[in-house]
Amino acid sequence: MPETVERTFAPLLALIRAERPLVHSVTNLVVMNFTANVLLAVGASPVMAHAPEEVSDFVVLSRAVVINMGTVDSGSFGSMELATRKAKKKKVPWVFDPVGIGATRFREGIGRYLARQKPSVIRGNASEIIALAGGLGQAKGVDALDGSDAAIDAGKRLSAKRKTVVAVTGATDYVIEGDSVTAIDGGHPMSQRVTGTGCAATALVGAFLAVAPPREAAIAALELMKHAGEIAGKTAAGPGSFAVAFLDALGNA
Amino acid sequence: MPETVERTFAPLLALIRAERPLVHSVTNLVVMNFTANVLLAVGASPVMAHAPEEVSDFVVLSRAVVINMGTVDSGSFGSMELATRKAKKKKVPWVFDPVGIGATRFREGIGRYLARQKPSVIRGNASEIIALAGGLGQAKGVDALDGSDAAIDAGKRLSAKRKTVVAVTGATDYVIEGDSVTAIDGGHPMSQRVTGTGCAATALVGAFLAVAPPREAAIAALELMKHAGEIAGKTAAGPGSFAVAFLDALGNA
Amino acid sequence: MPETVERTFAPLLALIRAERPLVHSVTNLVVMNFTANVLLAVGASPVMAHAPEEVSDFVVLSRAVVINMGTVDSGSFGSMELATRKAKKKKVPWVFDPVGIGATRFREGIGRYLARQKPSVIRGNASEIIALAGGLGQAKGVDALDGSDAAIDAGKRLSAKRKTVVAVTGATDYVIEGDSVTAIDGGHPMSQRVTGTGCAATALVGAFLAVAPPREAAIAALELMKHAGEIAGKTAAGPGSFAVAFLDALGNA
Repeated sequence: MPETVERTFAPLLALIRAERPLVHSVTNLVVMNFTANVLLAVGASPVMAHAPEEVSDFVVLSRAVVINMGTVDSGSFGSMELATRKAKKKKVPWVFDPVGIGATRFREGIGRYLARQKPSVIRGNASEIIALAGGLGQAKGVDALDGSDAAIDAGKRLSAKRKTVVAVTGATDYVIEGDSVTAIDGGHPMSQRVTGTGCAATALVGAFLAVAPPREAAIAALELMKHAGEIAGKTAAGPGSFAVAFLDALGNA
Repeated sequence: MPETVERTFAPLLALIRAERPLVHSVTNLVVMNFTANVLLAVGASPVMAHAPEEVSDFVVLSRAVVINMGTVDSGSFGSMELATRKAKKKKVPWVFDPVGIGATRFREGIGRYLARQKPSVIRGNASEIIALAGGLGQAKGVDALDGSDAAIDAGKRLSAKRKTVVAVTGATDYVIEGDSVTAIDGGHPMSQRVTGTGCAATALVGAFLAVAPPREAAIAALELMKHAGEIAGKTAAGPGSFAVAFLDALGNA
Repeated sequence: MPETVERTFAPLLALIRAERPLVHSVTNLVVMNFTANVLLAVGASPVMAHAPEEVSDFVVLSRAVVINMGTVDSGSFGSMELATRKAKKKKVPWVFDPVGIGATRFREGIGRYLARQKPSVIRGNASEIIALAGGLGQAKGVDALDGSDAAIDAGKRLSAKRKTVVAVTGATDYVIEGDSVTAIDGGHPMSQRVTGTGCAATALVGAFLAVAPPREAAIAALELMKHAGEIAGKTAAGPGSFAVAFLDALGNA
């Protein structure tokens, strides 16, 4: 039975603000600007270089790495491969977002390969976590069709198989490590009408990985997402002002 | 003589919201985030994958496709070629945005090639439609220098030649099918000071193509653009807040 | 001793609004949308095509060019090489933003190469200007760790060596030409928590280069940045609303 926790992100967020850790992302073209702003709002220092000539150098300089396969192609996959290999070698923690993994074979192959490269955290919606765990989620494009609780068992299997923390996000979020499941409630439904909020959650996991172990980092990041979503939902007049108020809430948290 | 119509987008918009159709875009790097947010705001489910290994798979999963050549290069042109070929074969409706077609030979070659691949709708500004129809518009970069009414005849020729619906946008928009011309007035001049509003119109045509035939889809999309522009213009204090209010208005329409 | 000047951007800004010059950017993927909106807000006409088949054609059509190496790779470096070669040949003024030059060898090689191609203005933060001048700035990723005044001497050396105007931005901005140094104060600290504000300064230098000589263009652009930042800072509730209010302030300046 998942337990609901009090929000505990504040001391870790203060650490991020004090240390301004470099967080390197090889991420998707749709959300680069938004997730860079998310990282800056919490006090991290984002970099998004992808050239194979330098991507490993940036991993070495960074305290955490974010890999998001939303618009992956053979070129950016090469960069992800270099980045994750270096992260593994230098023990730089990294978070993996298997965007839309159930939708195509190409995406499935890349997602499974990256999931085997020892990510510290895998963050996805229910359909993605089910697909990555080898089950039959209702993948359609990049949006989840399954409720997040439908992915708890898949998340446990994936966590055990890949020895990693799994974060399933949805109306309720679940952070799973082995058989331990932490539920995080709250947020606002309008976040589903802003592109890149899932990717923003992954980026925030990256920021917290710079200052905390994987399970604590994932819990803090998702708590902060819910917190900022709630605040944004109070004043937003629609999805445009929600995104703006969400960044403000992150900046003021 | 163009006739002005009452706004009729509401029932089709309700269909989009009910069915949440997957709309696949191979689009330009400048507007990916904004047009994804536009599609989400009206209830569609946007995907923006471009890898040649999977772009056709996404077309098959989608109910409409958006092709925008704003930042086209040989790589993304290859993806557009695969996507439009599959769309034609599987009868998935698609809309083409020939951004800046008059400006360079490279762009002209690509634009003419794509216009021959049976798009359901071609959406452009006056200069682009004139250039694509083979006339001498005053192309300069990607902004129109001609008034939209200057492109009505070119639009009719293009519609007849390519057996497609042509949408010319400007202060007044025109949706042209053969000799039939529908005028759509309204909107707000500040939309010209926000990047990607033309691309947003194209994306919305894509969303409506998922639930309606080409002419009805183009009319509904442009009506909705004008409607949201008018609402945004009432509260916007400048181009930044206009873009935010525009997304809010789409979300609340 | 740097002298502080009264703000003098208004007449040049009026020229941009009257002439709507085409400004071509080969720029970084994170900030394309934001800097296009910055250019539109001041009345310029932005283009961001990068295909090697046409990038030189756009340079010929343009009144100024912006080169930003934030997410450079071998492909976009090729486009930058073509664009800067054509700009030099056709005497189109251009501004160079050596983003993160101190961070990796790849970036250092590209940055030094481009700095030798006769840019009209080089705009960077203190760490970048120090690194480009051959000194030891505290580069870490893409954010400056040095105060802007620490880079005045490096800026003078760089200006003399490359016969170019150097603009160092920070809490105080400095526009340097040979031994002449103009200081520009003001702005708002929240601009550091919005991604791409440095890139926006570079884009604005590009817009002013279309209507003024390099030193005047750089001064006007940085004055306008400070002015818009001050206005945005008065109403912003956080980094999200700061970015929106900043674009509004540019639009209303």
